[in-house]
Amino acid sequence: MAEAPAPLLPCGPIGIVGLGLIGGSLALDLLAQGHTVRAWVHRPSTAQRASERHLATEVSTDPGVLEGCGLVVLALPLDRLLEPPAELLAALPPGAVITDVGSVKAPVLARWRGLHPRFVASHPMAGTAQAGVEAGLAGLFSGRPWVATPASDTDPVALDLVRALAELVGARWLTCGAAEHDRAVALISHLPVLVSAALLQTADRCGAAGPSELPGLVRALASSGFADTTRVGGGNPELGTLMARCNHDAVLAALAGYRRQLDDLEQRVRQGDWDGLRQDLEESAQLRPQFLS
Amino acid sequence: MAEAPAPLLPCGPIGIVGLGLIGGSLALDLLAQGHTVRAWVHRPSTAQRASERHLATEVSTDPGVLEGCGLVVLALPLDRLLEPPAELLAALPPGAVITDVGSVKAPVLARWRGLHPRFVASHPMAGTAQAGVEAGLAGLFSGRPWVATPASDTDPVALDLVRALAELVGARWLTCGAAEHDRAVALISHLPVLVSAALLQTADRCGAAGPSELPGLVRALASSGFADTTRVGGGNPELGTLMARCNHDAVLAALAGYRRQLDDLEQRVRQGDWDGLRQDLEESAQLRPQFLS
Repeated sequence: MAEAPAPLLPCGPIGIVGLGLIGGSLALDLLAQGHTVRAWVHRPSTAQRASERHLATEVSTDPGVLEGCGLVVLALPLDRLLEPPAELLAALPPGAVITDVGSVKAPVLARWRGLHPRFVASHPMAGTAQAGVEAGLAGLFSGRPWVATPASDTDPVALDLVRALAELVGARWLTCGAAEHDRAVALISHLPVLVSAALLQTADRCGAAGPSELPGLVRALASSGFADTTRVGGGNPELGTLMARCNHDAVLAALAGYRRQLDDLEQRVRQGDWDGLRQDLEESAQLRPQFLS
Repeated sequence: MAEAPAPLLPCGPIGIVGLGLIGGSLALDLLAQGHTVRAWVHRPSTAQRASERHLATEVSTDPGVLEGCGLVVLALPLDRLLEPPAELLAALPPGAVITDVGSVKAPVLARWRGLHPRFVASHPMAGTAQAGVEAGLAGLFSGRPWVATPASDTDPVALDLVRALAELVGARWLTCGAAEHDRAVALISHLPVLVSAALLQTADRCGAAGPSELPGLVRALASSGFADTTRVGGGNPELGTLMARCNHDAVLAALAGYRRQLDDLEQRVRQGDWDGLRQDLEESAQLRPQFLS
């Protein structure tokens, strides 16, 4: 027996701005629940492909498509969120609830709380290696965190609607301060990109600085451990740059903390303090399960 | 139709010293090919469990079990390889080919080339998160590199026999100098452990130094990217310590190189050089596939 569909969100048609990985996935889940989804995209080619993929009820390059929507999700890259085009601002229905999906929250909240009275800053934490109009897939948010960072003047009814949206697509709802969110994601998401990219570059550069067979050898011997440790460092360069740019203070603080930990480990090796190194690695082994949900 | 078994290696019974992940897996593959496998293990409880798991033709805590073997594989941890017990040295048949499976080669080769005339230093690069007598599994070496690091005085016939062993269990055979091997594994295997452990410790320490909700938040928000980047840092502490201890010069050189790359990335963030950061991350994204076999 099929499960009964969840009741529709009390907002009428839902607008989505941008149909990349996050916007497209959200649209698919909302359509599957019986919602009307109206999507505004920038490029005609995106509109055509989104229509072919049946990502939304209506897809248009005309911002007027958002008219009548009671909830609009801004599924845009951080730079476009922070410098929203005038035609976007003009097209947002004044009474609608507006939310975003950006991975850094303090600057987005600071920018948008003056732009729209019912803005809710939020961050669904789901992703794949894919991007663009082909990337959206059903069920992306299931079991993943969806964090909102309300301010003191955030409309509580608007916040509830965004929570209902997150729960409708199966996400785990959390709220916290925007600054705390940005510090946390600097540690567990943005710092790993830099740590991992530096490892790839080290294997390349130090290999090239050695005997002529070394570059081939490091490539031939790299195994699943190296592949795992470097996965996020080999990810989307544009996204990695935007995260560091929009969250630079927290990223620099995380890097400073990281340097201290690495210094300590290096000191163990330099001094031949093998008992100390073993204790450090035992602590790491005990820490890791705490970070796996 | 079943595939015809490979011809037996021309060495008579094969001895294996230690039945952990590598020794146990090798024993299973050799038994499956019709070889007689004689295993010497340290603890009676290991011998009993190995017999129950049918890991070898004969398992004993008496080194005399190695008598008559034409090939002996020392599947021991690095510290025991570097300080081999006298009863092991006494039990190795003088005419047999001896090889090891240690993940650092220069010190093992330096120690053993004076201990046995037919020693071949080698390193099958396969692993799982498991260790001990329960860990061995069939097919572990299939498609994985098996590196030998012959010296000028390594017996070429002995080297050929170890190559035949590696190929019998489906590994990819490579040879290189011991120092080059150790530099390569420092970059792609030992450095990642430290880089990854430091990341876990940073997420823990910097979370704890923040507002009271931060430690819970970093744990709740850590996702698959953090899990991947920290996998090897949460691995076996004993193994990580032995690698750093036995390969400390190459590990320190790799750490120095890593620090330069991380400094460069940090400088980009500090100076707001977003074009430069994007170029660095684009380069990383292009580098990574070169390291994935």
